[in-house]
Parts: sequence; C-alpha cells; structure tokens
Amino acid sequence: MVGELKDIYIADLASFDEGKLFDGYFLVLLKQQRTTKTNKPYLNLILGDKTGQLEARIWTPEDPRIARDFERGDIVKARGSASRFDDRLQMKVDQLRLAQPGEVDKTDMLPSTTYDVGQLWAQLLSFVTSLRNPDLKLLLTTILDNSTIAASYREAPAAKQLHHAWLGGLLEHVVSLCTLADRVAPHYPLLDRDLLLTGVILHDIGKIRELSWEVGFEYTVEGMLLGHIQIGAALAERTMDSLPAFPPKLKTLVLHMILSHHGKLEFGSPKLPMIPEALVLNFLDDLDAKMQAVAGEFDKCAREGKSPDELTNKVWALDNRQLLNTKLWLGKSNV
Amino acid sequence: MVGELKDIYIADLASFDEGKLFDGYFLVLLKQQRTTKTNKPYLNLILGDKTGQLEARIWTPEDPRIARDFERGDIVKARGSASRFDDRLQMKVDQLRLAQPGEVDKTDMLPSTTYDVGQLWAQLLSFVTSLRNPDLKLLLTTILDNSTIAASYREAPAAKQLHHAWLGGLLEHVVSLCTLADRVAPHYPLLDRDLLLTGVILHDIGKIRELSWEVGFEYTVEGMLLGHIQIGAALAERTMDSLPAFPPKLKTLVLHMILSHHGKLEFGSPKLPMIPEALVLNFLDDLDAKMQAVAGEFDKCAREGKSPDELTNKVWALDNRQLLNTKLWLGKSNV
Amino acid sequence: MVGELKDIYIADLASFDEGKLFDGYFLVLLKQQRTTKTNKPYLNLILGDKTGQLEARIWTPEDPRIARDFERGDIVKARGSASRFDDRLQMKVDQLRLAQPGEVDKTDMLPSTTYDVGQLWAQLLSFVTSLRNPDLKLLLTTILDNSTIAASYREAPAAKQLHHAWLGGLLEHVVSLCTLADRVAPHYPLLDRDLLLTGVILHDIGKIRELSWEVGFEYTVEGMLLGHIQIGAALAERTMDSLPAFPPKLKTLVLHMILSHHGKLEFGSPKLPMIPEALVLNFLDDLDAKMQAVAGEFDKCAREGKSPDELTNKVWALDNRQLLNTKLWLGKSNV
Amino acid sequence: MVGELKDIYIADLASFDEGKLFDGYFLVLLKQQRTTKTNKPYLNLILGDKTGQLEARIWTPEDPRIARDFERGDIVKARGSASRFDDRLQMKVDQLRLAQPGEVDKTDMLPSTTYDVGQLWAQLLSFVTSLRNPDLKLLLTTILDNSTIAASYREAPAAKQLHHAWLGGLLEHVVSLCTLADRVAPHYPLLDRDLLLTGVILHDIGKIRELSWEVGFEYTVEGMLLGHIQIGAALAERTMDSLPAFPPKLKTLVLHMILSHHGKLEFGSPKLPMIPEALVLNFLDDLDAKMQAVAGEFDKCAREGKSPDELTNKVWALDNRQLLNTKLWLGKSNV
Amino acid sequence: MVGELKDIYIADLASFDEGKLFDGYFLVLLKQQRTTKTNKPYLNLILGDKTGQLEARIWTPEDPRIARDFERGDIVKARGSASRFDDRLQMKVDQLRLAQPGEVDKTDMLPSTTYDVGQLWAQLLSFVTSLRNPDLKLLLTTILDNSTIAASYREAPAAKQLHHAWLGGLLEHVVSLCTLADRVAPHYPLLDRDLLLTGVILHDIGKIRELSWEVGFEYTVEGMLLGHIQIGAALAERTMDSLPAFPPKLKTLVLHMILSHHGKLEFGSPKLPMIPEALVLNFLDDLDAKMQAVAGEFDKCAREGKSPDELTNKVWALDNRQLLNTKLWLGKSNV
Amino acid sequence: MVGELKDIYIADLASFDEGKLFDGYFLVLLKQQRTTKTNKPYLNLILGDKTGQLEARIWTPEDPRIARDFERGDIVKARGSASRFDDRLQMKVDQLRLAQPGEVDKTDMLPSTTYDVGQLWAQLLSFVTSLRNPDLKLLLTTILDNSTIAASYREAPAAKQLHHAWLGGLLEHVVSLCTLADRVAPHYPLLDRDLLLTGVILHDIGKIRELSWEVGFEYTVEGMLLGHIQIGAALAERTMDSLPAFPPKLKTLVLHMILSHHGKLEFGSPKLPMIPEALVLNFLDDLDAKMQAVAGEFDKCAREGKSPDELTNKVWALDNRQLLNTKLWLGKSNV
Repeated sequence: MVGELKDIYIADLASFDEGKLFDGYFLVLLKQQRTTKTNKPYLNLILGDKTGQLEARIWTPEDPRIARDFERGDIVKARGSASRFDDRLQMKVDQLRLAQPGEVDKTDMLPSTTYDVGQLWAQLLSFVTSLRNPDLKLLLTTILDNSTIAASYREAPAAKQLHHAWLGGLLEHVVSLCTLADRVAPHYPLLDRDLLLTGVILHDIGKIRELSWEVGFEYTVEGMLLGHIQIGAALAERTMDSLPAFPPKLKTLVLHMILSHHGKLEFGSPKLPMIPEALVLNFLDDLDAKMQAVAGEFDKCAREGKSPDELTNKVWALDNRQLLNTKLWLGKSNV
Repeated sequence: MVGELKDIYIADLASFDEGKLFDGYFLVLLKQQRTTKTNKPYLNLILGDKTGQLEARIWTPEDPRIARDFERGDIVKARGSASRFDDRLQMKVDQLRLAQPGEVDKTDMLPSTTYDVGQLWAQLLSFVTSLRNPDLKLLLTTILDNSTIAASYREAPAAKQLHHAWLGGLLEHVVSLCTLADRVAPHYPLLDRDLLLTGVILHDIGKIRELSWEVGFEYTVEGMLLGHIQIGAALAERTMDSLPAFPPKLKTLVLHMILSHHGKLEFGSPKLPMIPEALVLNFLDDLDAKMQAVAGEFDKCAREGKSPDELTNKVWALDNRQLLNTKLWLGKSNV
Repeated sequence: MVGELKDIYIADLASFDEGKLFDGYFLVLLKQQRTTKTNKPYLNLILGDKTGQLEARIWTPEDPRIARDFERGDIVKARGSASRFDDRLQMKVDQLRLAQPGEVDKTDMLPSTTYDVGQLWAQLLSFVTSLRNPDLKLLLTTILDNSTIAASYREAPAAKQLHHAWLGGLLEHVVSLCTLADRVAPHYPLLDRDLLLTGVILHDIGKIRELSWEVGFEYTVEGMLLGHIQIGAALAERTMDSLPAFPPKLKTLVLHMILSHHGKLEFGSPKLPMIPEALVLNFLDDLDAKMQAVAGEFDKCAREGKSPDELTNKVWALDNRQLLNTKLWLGKSNV
Repeated sequence: MVGELKDIYIADLASFDEGKLFDGYFLVLLKQQRTTKTNKPYLNLILGDKTGQLEARIWTPEDPRIARDFERGDIVKARGSASRFDDRLQMKVDQLRLAQPGEVDKTDMLPSTTYDVGQLWAQLLSFVTSLRNPDLKLLLTTILDNSTIAASYREAPAAKQLHHAWLGGLLEHVVSLCTLADRVAPHYPLLDRDLLLTGVILHDIGKIRELSWEVGFEYTVEGMLLGHIQIGAALAERTMDSLPAFPPKLKTLVLHMILSHHGKLEFGSPKLPMIPEALVLNFLDDLDAKMQAVAGEFDKCAREGKSPDELTNKVWALDNRQLLNTKLWLGKSNV
Repeated sequence: MVGELKDIYIADLASFDEGKLFDGYFLVLLKQQRTTKTNKPYLNLILGDKTGQLEARIWTPEDPRIARDFERGDIVKARGSASRFDDRLQMKVDQLRLAQPGEVDKTDMLPSTTYDVGQLWAQLLSFVTSLRNPDLKLLLTTILDNSTIAASYREAPAAKQLHHAWLGGLLEHVVSLCTLADRVAPHYPLLDRDLLLTGVILHDIGKIRELSWEVGFEYTVEGMLLGHIQIGAALAERTMDSLPAFPPKLKTLVLHMILSHHGKLEFGSPKLPMIPEALVLNFLDDLDAKMQAVAGEFDKCAREGKSPDELTNKVWALDNRQLLNTKLWLGKSNV
Repeated sequence: MVGELKDIYIADLASFDEGKLFDGYFLVLLKQQRTTKTNKPYLNLILGDKTGQLEARIWTPEDPRIARDFERGDIVKARGSASRFDDRLQMKVDQLRLAQPGEVDKTDMLPSTTYDVGQLWAQLLSFVTSLRNPDLKLLLTTILDNSTIAASYREAPAAKQLHHAWLGGLLEHVVSLCTLADRVAPHYPLLDRDLLLTGVILHDIGKIRELSWEVGFEYTVEGMLLGHIQIGAALAERTMDSLPAFPPKLKTLVLHMILSHHGKLEFGSPKLPMIPEALVLNFLDDLDAKMQAVAGEFDKCAREGKSPDELTNKVWALDNRQLLNTKLWLGKSNV
C-alpha cells in the first residue's frame, strides 16, 4: 500500500470516525463470494484480531489492489474504512494483501490474556510445589511436565464465547482460581487443600482438546461428542493408571472432582459434588467465571461510553441480567 | 429343627395364612438389637431370598432354638409365621440356625433372572459374531473374553431397585436390547447396525463396578462418586487404547454412545445423543426398561390378586402412573 | 416469454450461479405492495414449489412483461435470477405470467412425499387386513372406506413445519410406523398387536382437519382451537358409536391411544399412556419423527455441501442439537 | 344393641372423650382380615359417614355381638369408642350389625353439600333461561333435560379429594361459578356472557362419568383413561351434532371452552385458552376452587380448635401453603 | 414549512399510502449520527406520539429545512413520508423544526389513557370513602392527599411495555380493579372488602418511582435495583408508622398484600398470598392485566385490518399465544 | 428424686443402653393428653435440651412422682429410660418435677453456638470498625448500638431447621461470612469491600423478628407473612432515613444487597443481584450455609458411629444428596 496510515485494532473502530481510512493486520475468519442486487460480485469477510471480530465487505474484488490468493486462516493487511449499517459496525476494504511472514505476530490475531503467560505458568507451578500430598503432587507434575499438554495448557482459551474466551484464558482462569481457593481453604478445616487445588488445576484440562484455537475459537468434533469433562477425566485417569502406586481411593476422588465441577446435572456434570472439596470447587469456579463476565461487561460499557447512571447490556452468563457498576454510579461525591 | 415343615419363599408369604408355621432359607440383610417398651431385648432383621425381602422379629433371642452366631451376610434356616402389622407383612421367627455349607444354593438367596444365563451369554456372543466391522468386533471380543469382566457381566443386576434388579438382570436387559435393536436397525438405512449393537452391549457395562451384589444390591462408593457411565467409558477407552489400530474417530463414537445413552443431561448423561445410533440406543434402552417395569408390575398385581378391572399400583419408573392390563381388562368376551 | 430457459426448482437455486437467468413455475404464497426508499413501488412475493419456498422481489411491477392479475394461491411462470442478500437467498423476477390450466401439475407446487401414494395406501390397507380383532378391523375399514376421509388421509402433511411436512407426509409417517410397530410388537408378549396398529393408524388422523394444504401448509381455526388429538378422538368416537356392537371397553382403549400418544401433558396429551400399547405408540411415534428429522437434516447438509467433518445445523425437533452423520464422518477408510 | 347411646358423626369424634362409648351409622369403605402378633385374628375397617372417614378395629370378631355378614358397601350400626394411636384417631368397635333398610338415609353416609340441591338446580336452570343465544340455550336445555344426566349432575362430587369433594359438589361449584361469572361478565364488554355461562355449566360435566360415588368417591376406569375433559367434550359434541342447525363455528367455541378450562397443558388441558371467554372461565374456575379450599381449611381449623394466632395446616390445593384467617387474627379490638 | 399538510399520528401511518407526504408533531426518543455505505452522514431517529413510536431517517441532515438544534426529549414538527423496509415501517423526514411552546400539548406526545383522569381519580376517591375500617381509610387518605404522590399516581403508566403502558395507565388499572373487586368481594363472605380494596389501591403504588415517563417509559435505576413491590411496601410502611394508632397486625396484613400480589416467587413476590384477600388480589390483578392485553391486541388487529377468521399475533403477556376474537369470528349470521 | 443418677443430654441417648435409667433437665416443647387402646390415659411429650429433641411418654401420669403442674415452656427434671420403637428413639419417663429457678441455665435448654458469643460480637464490631466509608460505618454502628437489636442479634438462630439452627447461629454465621468476605474481597478489585461487609452484616438481620426462640425455634406470624428479607430491608431503610446525610444512591445499594441475597426469585429474593457485591454476597452466603450443613452432617455421622466407608444420610440442604467425608475415607494410610 502506498502511504502508511495509522494501524488500528478492531476494538478501536467503534469510536473511529465513520469513513476515515485506516490500515490494519487481520486474521481471515470467513471468506464468501456474493452478488449484489445488480449482479455485481463482492466478497463478504469476517476479519479478526486480538481485540475482536468484524464483518467486512470488498465491493471491488476485481480491483488490482485486492489480493486474489488469500483464504480463511490467512493473515492479511487491509486498508479501509468503517461504517454503521442497521446499527451494526461494518468494514469496507479498499486494499488487501497477504501479510509477510514475520511481519506480524500470530498471537496478535486472536484475543489473548493481558497477563504474562510465563508468569502465570510459574504461579501455577508454585501452587503445585506447595502441595504436601506426594501422590497428588506427582500426578500434577507428571501431567504438567508433558510438553504437549503444557504447550496447550498455556495457549488454550477457557471457553469459546463466554468467560475467559481468549488465548491463555484457561491458564488465567486456573491461576485466579488457585489463588482464590488458597484464600478460602483455611476458612473451612474440613477441606483438604491439596485435593481442592488438584481439582482446580485439572477441572478444565479437557478443554485443551475440546476446543481448537487455530483460526478463531471452535469446538472440535471430539469436543462436541465427548466434552471437556470426559476428555479431562480420561487424561487424568490414564496418568494415574501410569503411576505405579497411586492410591485407588484417591483416584476416585480426583475423578469425582473433575466430573462434578459443573455442579448440576443439567450443566453437564454426570455427578453432583459429594465431597466438600468438590462442592467448593464448583462454587469458586462459578464465582470466578461470573466475576470475569462482570468485569468484561464493565470494560465493554466503558469502551462504548455508557454513562455511570446506565445499566450494562444484558449479560448472557448472568441469566441475561443487566448490571450496575457500583463504583461508577456512586462516584466520588457520594461515597 | 424337629419336624420339617413346608419350605417357603418370601413372595409366597403374602398369600400365606397368617399365623401358620413355615420353614425357609434366607439371607440375613440386616441384624439389629432392639428393646421393647418393657425393656425386653429383641432382634430386628431383614431377611431375603430370590423372591424378595421381609422384616422379621425375634422376640425371644434368649431361646436356645435361636442361634447366637449369625451375622449380616449369613444364610440361615428359620422357622416362623407371618402376620400383618399396620398393613405391612412381617415375619415372627421362632427358631433359627446357620445353614450348612452346601445345604442351599447362594444364588437362591437373591432375586435372579428367570432365563438361563448360559443361553443368554451365548445369544450375546452370537450378536458379537454377527458384526462386520472388525474393529468393533475386536473391541467387544477383547472385553468379553476377559474372564473377570465376563463373570461380573453374567451376574450383575441392571439396577439397584428399578428395572431388572436381579442377578443376571444386566445380561438379560442387554440381550433383550440386542434383539430389539436388531429388529429396528434395518428400518432406518442411515443406522450403522454394528455401532448400534456395540453401544447396546457396552452402554451399562460400568454397572459391574457401580453396584455390588454380595449381600443385597448396593452401590459401591466408587459407583456413587463416578457412576456407571464414567466407569463404563473408562473401561471401553482403556480397551480401545490397548488395541494397536483402533481408529480414533470410531473410538470417539463408541465413547459417545456410552456417555449419551441416558438421553438427557438431567438423567446424568454429560452429552446428548448427537449421532443416529446414540439416539436410537437411548430410545430402545428407555423403552425396554419401561416395558420391563410394566411387565413386573402386572406380575405383582397378579400375585396380589388384583381384579382385571383394577388399575395397578403407582409405578415409580413410569412417573408414578397407574397402569391398566389391557388383555385382562378386555377379557375373552369382549375382544 | 421469448426464449425458453432451463426450468428450475427452488432447491436448485442455492447452488445456482448468482445472476444467471432461469425460468420456473411457482405457487404464489404471499403478495405485498411495497415502496422503496425513493418511493418507487415494488412487489414483495413468497414463491414456492415442491422443493421449498423463497422470497422474491419485482422491482418493476409496471413492466408490461409482469402480469397484473395474479394473486396469492395462483400458479405463475416466472423468469428471473437469484442473489444473496445479507446471507439470505432471494429471487429477482423480471417476467411473470399466470400459468395456463394444464401447463403444470398442482402437486408439483407443494413439497410432496417421494414415495408412491398408491403403494403407501395399499401397504396401509394390508396392515388393516392383517388384524385379527374383528371390531378393530371393522372400525378401521369403516373409517378408511369413507372416501372424503381417505382422500384427505392420502394428501395430508404430518405437520406444518417439523417432520414429514409435505403432501402425503401423514400417510408416509403412518406406514413407516406400522412397519416399525410390526417389528417391535412380537418382542413384547404383553402387547396386543391389533390395538397397537389401530392406534398407529388413527393417532394423527385429526390432522386431516387440523391442517389445510391448499396454499402452503396452515393450521385451520378449528385446528388451532381444538387440536388434532381432540378432532381425531371425536372422529373415532363417532365411528365407533355408529357400529352397533362395538365393545365399550375397547372403545375406551382406542380413544385412550389417541389421547395419550404425545406422551406428556405439556406436549398436549390430556392423558399419559396407561396401557402398554399406548406407551409403545408414544415411543415409536417420537422415534420415527426424530429419525425423519435426522434424515432430513443430513439431506439438507448434503445439498448445502457441508464437509463430513462438520456437524449439521441445529435441529429444532431435537432440542436444537447439532448432529454428526456417522457414516460420512467415518468414511470408507476407517470402518 | 341393648341400650341406645348418643348417635355420633365421625367429625365429632375428634373432640370426643377417648374411651367414652358412642353409637353410630356408618358406611363400610374397607374390610380386611388381619392377625395380631400373638396370632389372634382381628378386623381392620374404614368406616365413613357424611362428615368423614375413620379407621376402625374389631379385636373380637368372634364376639356374637359382631355381625358376620357385612361387606364393603354396606351400612352398619356400630357401638364403640375412639382413641388416639400414634397421633391418629382410631375407632374400637365392640358391637356391629347391618342397618335395616329405611333405618338410615344413604345420603347421610357420604359427605354432601350443605345447600339444598333442589334450590341449586333451580338456580342453574334460571341461569340457562337468562341466555339470549337460542343455540346455546337449546344445547344446555337438551343436556339438562336428559333425566340420566340431570340425576348425575345433581349428585356428582366435583372432585375425589380436593375442592367440593362431596355429593352435590359439582352442582354447588357450578352455581357458585355462574353467579361469579354473572358478576364479572359485564365488567369486560368484549366477553360474550352466553358463551361464558355455557362454558361454566359444561366445563366439568364429564365428571359425572369420570367419578363414581356409590361407595366413597372413586375414579372409574373410563375416567382414569379418558378424563373428564374428553368425556365432557364428547358429550357436548354428540349433543350439538344431534341439533340440526347448531352453527359449526359455535360448536368449535363450546368445545374449546371445555378443552381449555384447566388453563395449562400440564394440568391436562390439551389446548390453552385462546378466546376471552375461555380465559375468564379458567380464572374463575381456579379462583372458586381455591376459595373453597380456603374456606374448608378455615372450617377445619375451627373444628380443631386452633387459636386465631396460629396459621392453618398446609393446604394441598394451594401449593402446600399455610394460611392465616384474617378476620380471626385481627379480632374485634384491632380493626 | 410552507404549505400545511394533514397532521397525522404514528398509528395512522400503517394504513397510509407509502410515499405520500404528511405533517406531524413528535417527541424525539432517540437521535443518532450515522453514515451510509458511501460515507454520507445521516440521522437515525426514533419519534413517538401518543399512538406509538417509529424509526425515522433524515438522509439530508445538511438541508436548511432540517433544524440543527433539536435533541432527545424535544418535541418537533416534521414533514415526511412513510415506507416499508424489510417489512418494518419507517419514516423518511424531509423537513423538521422544534415545536413552539404552546403549539402542542406534551401529553399528546406519549400514549395516554382514553379515560378522563379527573373522573378516574374521583372514582378512586369514592372507593376510599366507601371503606368502613377507619385505620385503612386514614392510611389511604393520608397517601392520596400527598400532592406529590397524587400527581404521580394520576400520571404513571402501569408498565413499561405490557398492559396499561400509557400515561394514566396505573390509575385506569386500579380503578378497573376496584370495580372488579367490588363485584367479587360479596360473593365470598370470608373476604374483608376493606382490606381487599386497600390492597388494590396500594399494590402497584411503587410504580410511581419504579418507572419514569418524561421521555418515553423507562425504568429508573432505583426501580431496577429495588422494584415496585419493595418501593411500594416501604412507602406504605412509612405512612403507617407515621399514623400514631395504626394497629400492628393490620400493618402486617397491608404489607403482605403488597408483597404477595404477584402470586408467585418467580414473578418477584417474596411471599406467596397467605390470606384470602391477597389470594383474590393476585387473581383479579392478573385477570385484569390479561384482559387488557386481549383488548389491546384485538384493537391492534382491527387497525391492521385482519380478517375475522384470522387469529391475532402472538401475545407476549399470554405466553405468546394467538387469540381469536369470538364476536368477530361468529359474526352476525351465526349467532 | 431419691438417688441422683448421671445427668444426661438428649444427644447422648442414641448410644445409651436401652432400658438403663438416667436423669436430665429438659425443656417441655409439647404436652398432650392421650389414651391407650385399653383406655388408660397417658402423656405424650416432646422434650428438648441444647443437644436435640425427643419424644417422651409418661405411661403413669397418676403416679405421685409425676408433677401435675408443668406446661409447655417449663423446664423440668425427669428420670427415665430410653428405648427404640419402630426404629425411632423414645424416652419413657418415670419421675418428673419442675426445675427450681436457678437450678439450671435456660440457655442449656436450646441448641446454642459452641463459640463464645462475646468474642463473636467483638469480632463483628471490629469488622465494622475496619470500614472506611463513613456513611456505612455510621449505619452499622447505629443499628448495632441499639440495645434491643443487639440483644436479639446475639441470640437469634440463623434458621428454624437448616443451617446454624441454634442460639447465636445468626451471629456465628455472619462472623464466618465477614471473615470469608474479607478473604475474597481483595481478589476482585472491582468489589467495594465496605459495601460487601455491610451487606454481610445486614443481610439476615430480619431474622431477629422473623423467628422466635423462646420455646423451640418458630416462625412468628409476622415472619411468615413478610419474611426476613422485607423485615430486614425495612429496618435498614428506617435507620438510613433517620441519618440526616445518608446518600440516596448508597441507600438504594444497601437495600439491594438485602433484597437480592437469596440469589434467585424462586428462593424469595424479589430482585436478582445486579451489582458485583450482591453477586458475591449471594455466593458466599450460600457456600457458608452449605459448608455448615456438610460439617453438621459429618458430626452427626460420627455420633451415629458410621464407618468411614459409608456415605452420610441424605442432606436436605444439599438437594438430598449423600456425602462422603474425604478425610475419613482416605484415612491415614492412603494419603
């Protein structure tokens, strides 16, 4: 492209002047051939980067400044402008080419944790180190030392769409939960802290195969048919079976932690929590997911410029409730 | 005991004259020390045999004709009479001794299938033989050739209390389902008969460890915490992992059959049926269990001497509905 | 129209080149006057044929090649092209005239069973012939001999939108159910095959007045206010009352089969199944409807060119579940 | 019996001195042979009269003062005393003989409306007379002129156990509803008063065959399998079909009123109210049944001597809620 | 504007010729800057008057005939035409100016009761006068004599969107309910008419602060967080606390009437009705709201020109049921 | 009584030898006159102390060693023995007299917290002191400085039957929650710790008037009709209204915390949590109540002598689930 314009992220477009030109790197999440009413062909795209996704239209696919050879999964550099159609933001792309290898970091193309993954991982390992039960410590070490598992664990999102739906989201969620469990465990003497932390670290591990995050976040077919609870329980069981002296009763408890962590049959747990550690895991997991949804919604409202007196949009993860940001609403003068 | 009386089964007592003496062999399912209002000690028992269970009282535990040394799990010979208390049948035991080894067959002490187990097993194996898919056939053969598994599969009840709650009930239910699936499969060309039959044969296999049937039918702790769906899926997965060339996609489908066979999340399936074979398995399994409950209730009403114009009792497995026995009600003259 | 182009069906348009001209005969399901933003009048239509329905626009209603005199319910010949608007296929019509009488078969204008209706009818009658109970056989013969009823029974769809929503769908569904019931009945000796088949043949007969299928498939007002269960029960009752010696108990059972066949109060059955035949009818009816929905969805995915690794769309009749086509997914090499 | 004692009703026994002798006429609702722990035979009875039912025991069935020849359904004269066992009142019967024909009125043996049935019937007919629509008036007259129907309509209870569960209860409930509907109808001009009253009078008419009230209140087999909604709709339909000029649209509405009056599918209505008259019928029917349950519970608490500050027992017909009797609680001094 | 055209209300536009010019006064409910695909700025508005709301577009905001200085909440005079876009009516505005003070009545800009508010208020007061209980009469007089409360009570809508969603709707609904309660109360002697009427008059009084009706009907933040039940109970409690001799038991009952009037926990009542007056209030409130929804839907269908044989649209307040207008459907000839 | 025997608490009786004599002080919770089958009068009692309640029988009320003058609510000294009847423990009382004033501490007669109330109160006040928001601190101080409120707050149970159902239970539960909230609050920066703690301290304060704990734990009539949510909100609102400068927005938030703390409409909260502090309060309150139920059940099983391999009884507060005591089950050797 001739002159370089300001590079922009998708989330910035909401507040960008309509019609003003921008440049940006994007991941192609969808590419479709279409025709206008007047039988002119055009391209319908969904483009994404780490801040979100947006529909885009190329009205002049024959323009030489539009590359021919890009497909779903490619990273492209695009120049265009934003406009609103029927209240929905849309991108109009005037120029587009494939990004050069090395020109842009792939992890910039998908939403990603704002924390340092290395630090999160170190935190996770230090929780493992803090365990006193040698069998549970060995189980966790064995799993996290597996380099394939570890690589996926560091990258996986915690969900396709709801809470922590970004690269590193699983790890971020688990570390948050470890910290929280560590605060809550001493309050109830009947809790076995080691079993609780083991449950925290393994409860969602099946997501590393339930989801794929190559091009956007998708369920795998295996993930759809089996679910992360079954996948995770199988992974844990296989590992425990490989440890010569793992106590059978403890194995049953670890599996029960994974199986029951959704807390209700209708949420896909085949068993309800029947030990105190499983009960607490379900509560904290649910609380942490919901608090993340609250925080995410407050951030979104801030980006959208909502006034402190306005309630948020309806939040799916909270039964479509609207929320109020306490601190903004009270403001300085009142508290 | 001095003179031998007619030996009797528990189910016969309902129509036995109250107060008339009988002899019988029973399994001791419960034994408790109690005291009467006037501070006299007595024994409270639950005795069982293959036809049912009954509360029993020994009002004179000090009587020399009452053995001292029997415990829960023992088989005893007892002499006594039946009476009704507050509408509930009860046994009064006057004499009791431990049964001699060999004097009575243990399998007579618990409810048991009315079919020949050897024949049922042969039927099961012939269904396996009829499979064309070599991987599925190998999977089933491997599992059923395991002598520990096979022994349990032949003995296990299909449930603790509901349908097929008797020794051999699991096998009887599975063979009935195989026959039914074999009739239904050709009606829908999109069904893979081999996968369907594999699902039928493996769907409840986890019950061999979810339940125990040594002294009465009970859940094991492992069974309570994990459930037969998880136990069965793990058994199948371990076996498929042990077969060098088992196709991964097929493995996912087999596991999905087991996981989804309850048909609803709230019934403990972590996944809903998403392939036609799983859908059909859920329907046939549910139908067969309900038809068995209907047949069982009709038998019970016949034993209780209900008139053809009376509805049955409320049937738990059918949402506490009452039923009508069509054939009895219509009788000869009307149809 | 000047030169004849290739005649096309609506289902073909999905894979037709956008903008390319075609000819076709269609039934007018909706006709509305509209105005563009620039105050130009245009026509908004819904056109249908046996393969589906589509929105159509006539942007130049004043064009002499557009007939003035067509209305909802007419069959027209139209020339136009297809295009996609906001992901939805749409037809643009350039020429349109009323079809001549005889030029096209009316039954080509609505979705219709792919089976031969005469053959289906013969199959139905042969099931009736196979009954041994003379009262039930007389009841069915009396109803099916009524030429008005018979004509409607052969034409009626089984539903407005869900399973078997096409001309002849009711008959096709009933014959499938008869075959299935015939396979299942011998498996359970407590079933009265004649009563079961009678229930199968009469359970949905009220649909011949609940639905209308003149112009599209619609509910009648009577159908909305009374429902096919009540309409069918009344028809059966009236017929049984007209047979001098029909046994009263048998009449109650036949009515109960019709009333309870939806299996749950919340599905509109005023009574739950209380006899084994009603229980089985509800299961098989539900299974056959769901299997038809599965088959229909697999066909749709094939037409849409989905890959074997993709799940289907969400299927309304299966609680909005997505499905996987087992046979495609496994493919040749794996099974 | 030698000397005549004060005759007593069952409801009076709750406040009767335990152990004091009484005489009374009762209907035998159940008769069972039993044996005591010490093998002595005794009789277990349920006796009833218009004020209620009670368990009774005859410990000396061999006593010559105890008749041999009485059965379920007989009216007997009994002498005995009341006592409480485990908090449940029970009768001990010392003497018992069959009542002589004419000695006692059969309608005294079952709970019965406290209103004059003749007067209620006259009120019902005057509501019919007040209708202006000739077709609806003819329909109602035709039905109520049928002497079999009329006799049953005057006797039938409105339910087996819940509201208005007494002879004449159906008529009492319908007349109360007519009065209420008559008050409410003018408030909403869009209501057709004639159709509303027709619905009120016919909505529960199926109960005359759903229930039997010969010996206690029971469901008939036909009632269990079809339900009063279907039985009533069939009766109405048959009558309308017999009237040469009954308008078809009006017939549909009358049937819809009957079918939808339970207001919810899960309460057994196959259709929800879709016309204003059906909506109002459902509301008033529900309100009247609940208000009768409230009144009945208040009466019961008064009989039991509850204090004005105590809540009532849990009321089944009101979701097991406890109630407070406003007027008693406020008392004189507070209001 | 140059020449005056016919002034029009929003509800009239549905049947107005598309493209034909009209004039009208409207309240601006929303004003947004937008850009077309071709980067031309335009204005997106929602305009309302007492008959409804409509989206409007100003494609030429730079036109000197379009005022610059109007905002949300202003009343404007606009000239334009109506057209349908994707089945949704839309206004195209060509000229627009601020309305002069006095030129139009603000109450014409929001939907408003069709009754005379003064008369409704007088009716309400006469119900208060009819009370015999001096404490309840004093309570109501104290509240309604408060001029701030009285002003709001006369203006408030009864809901944001559902029944009686118009200025004066609260008062209209309450007066309708008073009349209805007055008719029903004498039918049930156990009802305290004074307490019932007090409940009717106070049950929704919290809506005067739950809703705002300055610019459209909105929930206040306080309304969202506390709800009208809590706001109303607090208002009543504060007033009763201010009356020196208000009986404590009566206070509890009045509060209970307000708290329980939604009749179910899941509808936001923290307590279920436990006194007869609360039970009746809940029934009548629900009935009146639903009958108003029926009447409103029938009016809407009349305006839309639906035929008497057509069912209405789905009505949200009636579980998305469709309704039939009895009187229209039967017509003259049939009844 | 002549010779003093070992004084015993009710909970000890479960493991006491049947028939052995004991002495004890008990609160009379119920006293009823009864008659045996043989017309002998006897007394039926419910006696309680801080460890539980038990049914008791006095078979010889005429015995001079049985006091005549005791009533419900009195404390008595009784001598008797325990026995089991139909699996239910029962006391037989041989001697009974009124306890002398001062002979026994009334707080020993009802279950009571095992913590020191003075210390709990000091902990509560120190949490209040830790608040930074002056308005919230003033609100809490004003309420807790009220000596009537403070006295009740220190005594009240937290429930009638479920969690913390003992004297001081409310305070114990609140202090536990404060500690827990204090641990969790810093984990989520968007939480206002002061508002959260205020919610914790006030959420159940209405229980001081919803419940009475003079003789056993009962609901007051006011408590039944209004509930502790409404009573607590009214108390908080009245106090905030009495503070001249309490910020209105903050008042709304405090009330919202109380109203929404049950978390679901169907649990009696009229509003769902819409601010983060309310969401967290609901989670922690629920968790703490459930963990207390778990701990209580484990204690009960220990008292009942259950083996570590046995699951607990079904726990009402946990949806009738059975639980496993992790630590006991694993035992020493396994972990």
